[in-house]
Amino acid sequence: MSYPPPVEELVEAFEALPGIGRVSAERLTFHVLRDARSGGSLRDALARCLAEARRCVECGNVSEGDLCPVCSDDERDATTIAVVEEPRHVESLERAGVFSGRYHVLMGALNPADGTEERHLSIGALVERVRKGGVTEVILATDPDKEGEATALLVLEALESAGLPDLRVTRLARGLPAGSAIEYLHKGVLEDALEDRRQVRRR
Amino acid sequence: MSYPPPVEELVEAFEALPGIGRVSAERLTFHVLRDARSGGSLRDALARCLAEARRCVECGNVSEGDLCPVCSDDERDATTIAVVEEPRHVESLERAGVFSGRYHVLMGALNPADGTEERHLSIGALVERVRKGGVTEVILATDPDKEGEATALLVLEALESAGLPDLRVTRLARGLPAGSAIEYLHKGVLEDALEDRRQVRRR
Repeated sequence: MSYPPPVEELVEAFEALPGIGRVSAERLTFHVLRDARSGGSLRDALARCLAEARRCVECGNVSEGDLCPVCSDDERDATTIAVVEEPRHVESLERAGVFSGRYHVLMGALNPADGTEERHLSIGALVERVRKGGVTEVILATDPDKEGEATALLVLEALESAGLPDLRVTRLARGLPAGSAIEYLHKGVLEDALEDRRQVRRR
Repeated sequence: MSYPPPVEELVEAFEALPGIGRVSAERLTFHVLRDARSGGSLRDALARCLAEARRCVECGNVSEGDLCPVCSDDERDATTIAVVEEPRHVESLERAGVFSGRYHVLMGALNPADGTEERHLSIGALVERVRKGGVTEVILATDPDKEGEATALLVLEALESAGLPDLRVTRLARGLPAGSAIEYLHKGVLEDALEDRRQVRRR
């Protein structure tokens, strides 16, 4: 005994999404079957998003027009590009108001578990962008976790093999998060903080 | 700064599904944005499932026709109905080949966390079915967890308030799972096994 084709197909379509296993996919499908309204909203939102959502032709962020607000703002420093994983990381940095350069949004991080591979990430577009000239520094601003590290390495390698001898590539600093208490921080944080310690008195 | 409307709408439609929070909904949306094929499959599968998927008019299980294979099989004992949460529970019992009666599929279990309420479950249809006559026993076969227990109680109450003085209502036995080892079983299992112990020698 198995599900009728339209049901099985929906289970499989859910299961193909990152982070959704067979059991969750079945749960979502049964939810749609018993509450058609939520399924209808999702269907319509998907159709609209696939038809209308755009990505900034410059940085790859989600955008309403060809260019996102950051890329169309001439006051932003175009010599420095921060490479982030997702649109929400742009949002975080913008909210903090600590960065005046441009972004490049990869739209994910390498993650074999959820099926995100190199081809899904807009690394080629970044290399093209830097090749066009005018960029002096690329800041790797991926998450400080396993996926983010692997992604940063991939971006670094792509920039290395593109030549670009004058390009500076940096990554965000690691260490104690401001406002925290050392007793609550885990090993990895303390390790980074020791490793990257800064000299404060020259002798 | 926030997402353009078609993107935000899709995030919200994902977020409205059970078990998907804001962060997962954003991840899923970005996945669709960078891999339009998976989004297209989901959109089409949703459209097809919403248009074509049917539920058995008798038991509520997913079905290709008006009646599911079990309900259209005259050899199945129509006097006994096992009430299960989801189609896959029917599948499990059928695979085990241990039950020859009919089913009633509620399509979920009470779960405030994922928004499943009484109105989502086909309890009224069960009561109607029993009222039509011919059913002598209803077996509550929901999961032995918090949600399943709450659901079984709800079904029991609905059957109680429907009158039906001759109807027997039972639930699946609790105890040691066959093939297990007592040392690995948790408190709840052992508690049930002691509580429902059976006399093996009359004295």
